[in-house]
Amino acid sequence: MPLKQTPLYRFLKVCNEGRVEKSVLDCGAGGDTPFLSEFFAQGYLTTGVELDAKRMAIANEYGQARGQSLKVQLGDMRRLGFADSSFGCVYSYNTIFHMPKADVEVALGELKRVLKPGGYLFVNFLTVDDHRCGEGPCLGLNQYEQLDDGLPVIHSYYEHSEADPYFADMTQHVKETRIIEWRYEGRPIRQGFVDYIVQKR
Amino acid sequence: MPLKQTPLYRFLKVCNEGRVEKSVLDCGAGGDTPFLSEFFAQGYLTTGVELDAKRMAIANEYGQARGQSLKVQLGDMRRLGFADSSFGCVYSYNTIFHMPKADVEVALGELKRVLKPGGYLFVNFLTVDDHRCGEGPCLGLNQYEQLDDGLPVIHSYYEHSEADPYFADMTQHVKETRIIEWRYEGRPIRQGFVDYIVQKR
Repeated sequence: MPLKQTPLYRFLKVCNEGRVEKSVLDCGAGGDTPFLSEFFAQGYLTTGVELDAKRMAIANEYGQARGQSLKVQLGDMRRLGFADSSFGCVYSYNTIFHMPKADVEVALGELKRVLKPGGYLFVNFLTVDDHRCGEGPCLGLNQYEQLDDGLPVIHSYYEHSEADPYFADMTQHVKETRIIEWRYEGRPIRQGFVDYIVQKR
Repeated sequence: MPLKQTPLYRFLKVCNEGRVEKSVLDCGAGGDTPFLSEFFAQGYLTTGVELDAKRMAIANEYGQARGQSLKVQLGDMRRLGFADSSFGCVYSYNTIFHMPKADVEVALGELKRVLKPGGYLFVNFLTVDDHRCGEGPCLGLNQYEQLDDGLPVIHSYYEHSEADPYFADMTQHVKETRIIEWRYEGRPIRQGFVDYIVQKR
């Protein structure tokens, strides 16, 4: 059964073909269908960090039910407790934009730091095409304080090329800019994303 | 190992969750990594049609090497030799735009005809964002005669909402408009696609 994080199937394929060490870190690894499970099934040593203890537990239980030790632990992607060049692959899916842009830059520095030279990184961002861009109190630069399940959460939205400079020191493999229109809880929604797959030099 | 047809993982997930009959038809099913193999692995009865005998053989051999009978046969998606309402799921990936738009409409009529009521359809189109849109002799309406591997092939490019009316009689589940920038044989390329997942009423 494919998982819902469709763009990560391309990332997994790139990692498999890239002949990098089969160790992977997921930043924002918690929740009900952890994609680390797909990496584990392909022979990767997996590690995840997650801010929320409940989501961490749900992900680890998903793995345990499949005989997989996913190793999702509590952690903050802005301060990773791993040595430089620890992982062959690092990704963060639908997560990093839940921070102000200043923090996004700090987190990306950490993701790159723990990645091995030659290793692959996947990160995606919300874009200004998203139907929620403009909703809630604006903190400037398309950063908004919005409510998710009744709780205030920052959402940072990017212009299509705004995140390019984050990866100026890396080799770009794939950049996909996409608008997805579907229904969520019965209502039509439009989401805008830009996904990067880059390689550390 | 994930296959290269990343968007079809979402389609497979939708089909699995949709409780439709597990029978699937792929139109343009040939080539070196047939996605029918992923459907077969999930318990689907698979059928494919393919215009090219060599690509048909390659796909069936891929299945045979994995103990899968994919059943890819010679056929033309504009004239499908199947009864009405034969399949729970039908898809055509990176194929239908290799025809003039008049033929695309004929083919879509066939895809819908052989789909069961309640069944799911995936089709994708090239968009005018594609870096090759405008290349070669124009046949009008963003239809171009271009060379693929030295042979003349029609490519039809669509505006972002131009294909919407094809599915006016269906329920739209997902529409994804995407621009993918990567390298092909060393050169930077930009491809534009719009993918639809719709359900027959």
